[in-house]
Amino acid sequence: MPTNIERCDAVIVGAGPAGLLLAVCLVRFGYSIRIIDKRETRTLTGRADGLQPRSLELLRNMGLKRQIMAHEPAKVYEVAFWNPSSQGQGIHRTGHGKACPPSIDARYPFTTLLHQGLIEGVFIDDLHERGVHVQRPWTLSEFENNGKETAYPVRLVLKHVKQDEQQELRSKYLFSAEGARSTIREMLGIELQHREPISNVWGVMDGVVRTNFPDLKMKCNIHSDHGSMMIIPREKDLVRLYIQIASSSDPDFDPHHAATAEEVQASAKRILEPYDVEWERVEWYSVYPIGQGIADRYTLDERIFLLGDACHTHSPKAGQGMNTAFHDALNLAFKIHLVESGFAKRSLLKTYETERKMIAENLLDFDAKYASLFSQKVSSMMKTGSHFEGNEEGDDSNEFLKVFRESQDFTSGFGIVYEANAMVWSPSHPAQSALFQHERTNVRLGRVMPRANVTRVVDANVVKLEHEIPLNGSFRIFLFAGSPSTTKRAVADFATNLERKDSFYSSYAYRDLAAVSHHERHNPHTRFISICTIFAATRDSIDIATMLPPLIARYSYQVYADDIVDASMSNERAAAHAKLGFDEQKGAVILVRPDGHVACVVDLVEGSGTVDALNDFFGAVATKRLGHRREQARL
Amino acid sequence: MPTNIERCDAVIVGAGPAGLLLAVCLVRFGYSIRIIDKRETRTLTGRADGLQPRSLELLRNMGLKRQIMAHEPAKVYEVAFWNPSSQGQGIHRTGHGKACPPSIDARYPFTTLLHQGLIEGVFIDDLHERGVHVQRPWTLSEFENNGKETAYPVRLVLKHVKQDEQQELRSKYLFSAEGARSTIREMLGIELQHREPISNVWGVMDGVVRTNFPDLKMKCNIHSDHGSMMIIPREKDLVRLYIQIASSSDPDFDPHHAATAEEVQASAKRILEPYDVEWERVEWYSVYPIGQGIADRYTLDERIFLLGDACHTHSPKAGQGMNTAFHDALNLAFKIHLVESGFAKRSLLKTYETERKMIAENLLDFDAKYASLFSQKVSSMMKTGSHFEGNEEGDDSNEFLKVFRESQDFTSGFGIVYEANAMVWSPSHPAQSALFQHERTNVRLGRVMPRANVTRVVDANVVKLEHEIPLNGSFRIFLFAGSPSTTKRAVADFATNLERKDSFYSSYAYRDLAAVSHHERHNPHTRFISICTIFAATRDSIDIATMLPPLIARYSYQVYADDIVDASMSNERAAAHAKLGFDEQKGAVILVRPDGHVACVVDLVEGSGTVDALNDFFGAVATKRLGHRREQARL
Repeated sequence: MPTNIERCDAVIVGAGPAGLLLAVCLVRFGYSIRIIDKRETRTLTGRADGLQPRSLELLRNMGLKRQIMAHEPAKVYEVAFWNPSSQGQGIHRTGHGKACPPSIDARYPFTTLLHQGLIEGVFIDDLHERGVHVQRPWTLSEFENNGKETAYPVRLVLKHVKQDEQQELRSKYLFSAEGARSTIREMLGIELQHREPISNVWGVMDGVVRTNFPDLKMKCNIHSDHGSMMIIPREKDLVRLYIQIASSSDPDFDPHHAATAEEVQASAKRILEPYDVEWERVEWYSVYPIGQGIADRYTLDERIFLLGDACHTHSPKAGQGMNTAFHDALNLAFKIHLVESGFAKRSLLKTYETERKMIAENLLDFDAKYASLFSQKVSSMMKTGSHFEGNEEGDDSNEFLKVFRESQDFTSGFGIVYEANAMVWSPSHPAQSALFQHERTNVRLGRVMPRANVTRVVDANVVKLEHEIPLNGSFRIFLFAGSPSTTKRAVADFATNLERKDSFYSSYAYRDLAAVSHHERHNPHTRFISICTIFAATRDSIDIATMLPPLIARYSYQVYADDIVDASMSNERAAAHAKLGFDEQKGAVILVRPDGHVACVVDLVEGSGTVDALNDFFGAVATKRLGHRREQARL
Repeated sequence: MPTNIERCDAVIVGAGPAGLLLAVCLVRFGYSIRIIDKRETRTLTGRADGLQPRSLELLRNMGLKRQIMAHEPAKVYEVAFWNPSSQGQGIHRTGHGKACPPSIDARYPFTTLLHQGLIEGVFIDDLHERGVHVQRPWTLSEFENNGKETAYPVRLVLKHVKQDEQQELRSKYLFSAEGARSTIREMLGIELQHREPISNVWGVMDGVVRTNFPDLKMKCNIHSDHGSMMIIPREKDLVRLYIQIASSSDPDFDPHHAATAEEVQASAKRILEPYDVEWERVEWYSVYPIGQGIADRYTLDERIFLLGDACHTHSPKAGQGMNTAFHDALNLAFKIHLVESGFAKRSLLKTYETERKMIAENLLDFDAKYASLFSQKVSSMMKTGSHFEGNEEGDDSNEFLKVFRESQDFTSGFGIVYEANAMVWSPSHPAQSALFQHERTNVRLGRVMPRANVTRVVDANVVKLEHEIPLNGSFRIFLFAGSPSTTKRAVADFATNLERKDSFYSSYAYRDLAAVSHHERHNPHTRFISICTIFAATRDSIDIATMLPPLIARYSYQVYADDIVDASMSNERAAAHAKLGFDEQKGAVILVRPDGHVACVVDLVEGSGTVDALNDFFGAVATKRLGHRREQARL
C-alpha cells in the first residue's frame, strides 16, 4: 500500500445544491472531504431557485438563513390562479391561495426565491471559512470499491478537465451529486427507470420584464387559450417564466421540439393577453421536455452513494429538485456521521435508500399529476370560471386547484414523513415498551418536530425551540417536563438512568469529560446527544440549580419555560405542551434525529422505564450493548 | 484660490459610533466625505456595548441589523434585581422586570449587547462597500470657517499622527465626533458645563468568568452590603461588570481613586457573596469617576458641529452614550442633506441643537438620579426586602425600581420626543389648518411612528410598515386610506393636489422624470418624498390599478392591506388604523421625517385641504414657495 496516496473521509462529485449541502454537513460533523466539480464556476444563470419552507428552516438550523436572506430573495406568500375569461378576452384572475397555509405550521410560511448560484455561494463561503474549497474544473476519471483497504475501500482518480493533471485518492465514501447525467450511476450500472413518455415541452426564461400584469411579484399559475404559464418572482427585479411550448395534443407534437428565445417570448405574450409584456433583459432561457426518472438503487455497497438529481428527475415546476436534493444530502450526512463516529452500525446506512427513495416516488407521483394537469388544455368548465371568482377557499371542483392544495404539505417540505424503520419507531420496532407513544399525541413520528416558542430560563430570551440545538450531528432529546411539582421524581429518575454507564447516553460519553469547557452549551457530555428541558411553568418560577438534577442542569442554556402565548393555542397556559399534546401533569420525552425528524416519543415516568425504552430504541442501531441490567429484569 | 486643494462635502473627525453613523448616513444620501481617526485601529476592547431597542430599529431601517445580529450578540429581555438578604448572608434576588415592557411597543423588545468594535466594524464594512475608508491614524491640525469660499467655507488641515504628512482640504462641513475630549470643541471655545461633583468611582471589567451565580446571562442590578454592581451579558461568553470602587460617603473618598484589576475583582467577589466568581480571562478593565457635562453649544456657525460625547458626557451605566450619539448623528445627517440638496433653508440646521440638546439635558437628569440611587448604600428598609420578594410588579416604594421603571421609555430610545419646531407641528407652527391633528390620535408628534404589520399588495408579503421606506433621506408619507369606498374621492384629490406644480411634492420633482427606471420603488418622482398607502381592506380586495390614481399607483410596491391580526388590538379588522387611532371611514395622512420621527398628522379630506396643509407645513423650511394659488384663496 503506497503511503503517499492521500486519504480522506469522503469525495463528493458535483458542487450543486446536493453536493454542497452534503459537504457543509460533513465538514460540520468533523470529516475530511474533497468536493470537485467539472464546471469552472458556480452556477451563473438558470437552474433552480426556490427554497421551500422546510428547507429554509433547515438552513436556519445550520446558521445559514441570514446569509440567504442577505441576498433579499423574493418571498412567495400567495399563489394566484389565472384562467381564460368567458368572453374570450384573454386571462383574468380566478382565485388565489396561500403558498403555505397555516395548517402546515411552518416557521417561515413562504417560498424563498433566489438564484441557485447565490444559494451555492452561501454554501461555498461557509466551506471556505472552514478551509474547504471546491476543486474546479475537475472530474472523476476512475473509481472502484476494491476492498483492498478496510478503512478506505474506495480508490479513485480525479482528473483536471483542461490540463494534463490527475490525482489518486483513497476514500471511505464516494458521492455522486452530479445531476441527472450521473456518470457514477452509469458506471455502476444503476438503471434510471423512466415513467410516462414525454408529453409536453416547456420553456423557462429568467429576466427582467416591463408589464402591466398585476401579479408579477406573486407566483402565478396561468391557464390560457394559448397554453399555460407559471410566473415565479425572484430577487431584485428578476422574474422566471415557465411557458408551455408544445403539447402532445398538438397535431405535430415533437418531444424534442426546440424553440428560440423569440418564440418563447411570443408564447408568453399570447398567454398573458390582454396584458402587455416586454423583455428588458433576458438572463437565461432553456427549453426542456418534461421527463421523469428514478434510480433503481441509491447505493450498491453503502460506500458509493447517489443523491439529488442523480437519482430522481422530474418537472421543475413544483420547485422540488433542489429541496429534495437537500434532504437527500442531510439524510445521508447524519447517517454517515453516526456510522463513522462509532455510534451506529453500518446497517443504518441502508435506511438512506429506503427513506429517500420513498420520498422520490411520492414526488414523482405528485409531479406527474401536477405537470399533466398544468399542461392540459383548459376545459370549458374551467373557462366559465364562475366558482373561482373571489378566492380559492370555495369549491373544490377544479382538479388543478385540488391537486395543488393536497400537495402543499408535501411541497412545503413538511410532508416528508419517513416510514417506520430502525430510526422511526412503530409497534414493529425491536424496541418494545408500553411507554412508546404512537398516534397518541400531535407529534407525528418520522416528521419534523412541531415548532414552538419558549423562554430560555437563563437569559429570558424568547427562542424558537426547534432551532435551539444546531445541526451538529447530535440526537436531540426534548424533555417536556410538565409541571415541576408533579414530574420532579420522574425527571430525577430520568437523569439517574442516563447516568448508568450502559445507557445510550453514558456509553458514548467523551473519554475525557474534564477537558470539556464549562462554556459548552449543547454537548457537554457526549457529541451524540443534546438535551433540552421544557417546563410547563413561568420563567421566574424555575430555578435550574434546585429543580434539575446536575446532569440536566449542566445543559442550563437549554432549559426553557413554556410560557409564551401562542394565539393558535388560546387558553392554554403551556402552549408548547398543549400543541404537542402533552399532559402538563406528566410531560413526555421526544427523541429527534440529527436531521430534525422525530424518532420516537416516550412517556416520562418514574423509575427506569423512560431511559430503558430509549436504550432499547437506540439498541436497534447502536454499536454498543445498551441497558444490560434492565434486559434481565424486563417483563 | 488654489484649485488643487481637494474639496469635499464633509469632514468627520472621529470614527467611533457617532462619526461612523454620520458617515454612513451622509454617504447613503450621496455626499462626498472624509472620515479620520487618530487611533490606528477600530476599538479593540472596552467602551460601549449596548444597542437600545430604538437603535436596533434604526439599524434595521438602514439595512444593517442583519450584520449586527450575525455577531450573535447577547439579548437582554429582562433585568434582575438583587439585594442583601436580611440574614446578612450575602445577596438574593428580590425581583425582575422586562428590559423593554410591552407598553413601549418596540419591534425588538430587548437590548442588544455587542462589543463596540464589532458595531463599528459593521459601519466600516458598509462604508468600504461604498468606497469610503476611515483614514487612520490621522488628526485635524488646523481648521477655520474663513468664509472665503461660499460653497466650501471650512478650510482644514489634516495631519498624519506618526509621519510627517499633511493635507489641506476645503469642506462644506466639519464634524467633531471626537468624544469627550474634543479638541474642536476646545478650539471653538465652547464650554462643557459640568454638573454634580464626582461622588462615586466605578470600575468596569470585561471578561470571561466561571460562577454559580444564576443570572450571569441577564442584566443585573445588584446592591450589596459591600457596594453595588451591574452585570451586562455580552456576545460569546463575555460579561461586563460595573463595580462600585469608592463612594463619597467613604471616610477617605478620593474622586481620582485608582484601582488595580485585582482590587476590582476582589470587590466583585465580595459583592456577589454567597456566590463564587473566578475570572478565566480579563479582556479589558478601567476605572472611572462618574462625571457629567454638557456643551453650551452644539455649533456656532452651522458649519462646524459637535455630536456624541463631544457634547455630552455622563455615566455609562444606563447604556445611553452610543445610542445618544447615533441619534445626534442621524438628526444632523438628514438636516444637512435637506439643506445641501436644496430642499430646506439653512435655518433648519438650528433645530439640530434645539432638538438634541434637550435630549441630552433629559439624559443627564435621568443619569444623575439613576447613578446616585445606584451608588447609594442600601437602606435598612431595602435590606428587609420583604416587598421585593417574587417580582417587581408590586410595590413601588423602592425609589431605585421606581426610577428604573419611569426611565425605561426614555432609555429604550422610544422616549425621544422632539418638541414643537419647524419640523414638528404644534398649534404654534406657522402652518395653520384645522386639518392638523394634535393629541387626537395615538400618533404622538415628535416621536417615532408606531410600528404596524401590514400585507404588501403586490406580493402578499407580511411586512413591518415602519421599515418599508429605507433610511434614504426622504420624508415618508403614510397615507392611511381607510375604506376604499369612502375615501376614494379624498385619495384622488390628494393625488391631484400633489400633482399641482407648486406642491411640496411636484416642486421638488426630478428634472428628468423619463430617466427614472420603472423598477424604482421608493422614489420614482422626487428624492425627497416617498409614499406608502395603507387601505383598511383585505389584500385580495385591493386592485391598485383601478383603486388608486396613477401618481400613487406608481408606488405600487408601497401599497398595503391593513389585514394582519394584531393580538393587542383584538376585534379590530384594520389593526394598524385602530392602533394609530384612525377612523376607517376617514383615514389620515402621517408625515414622517427622514429620521423616522412624526412631523405632523393631517386629516384626509376631499378637496385640496390635505395637501394645502402639508404645503404650509413644508413652507416653514422649504426653499421654494409652495401652494401659491391656494394662499390667495385661503380663508
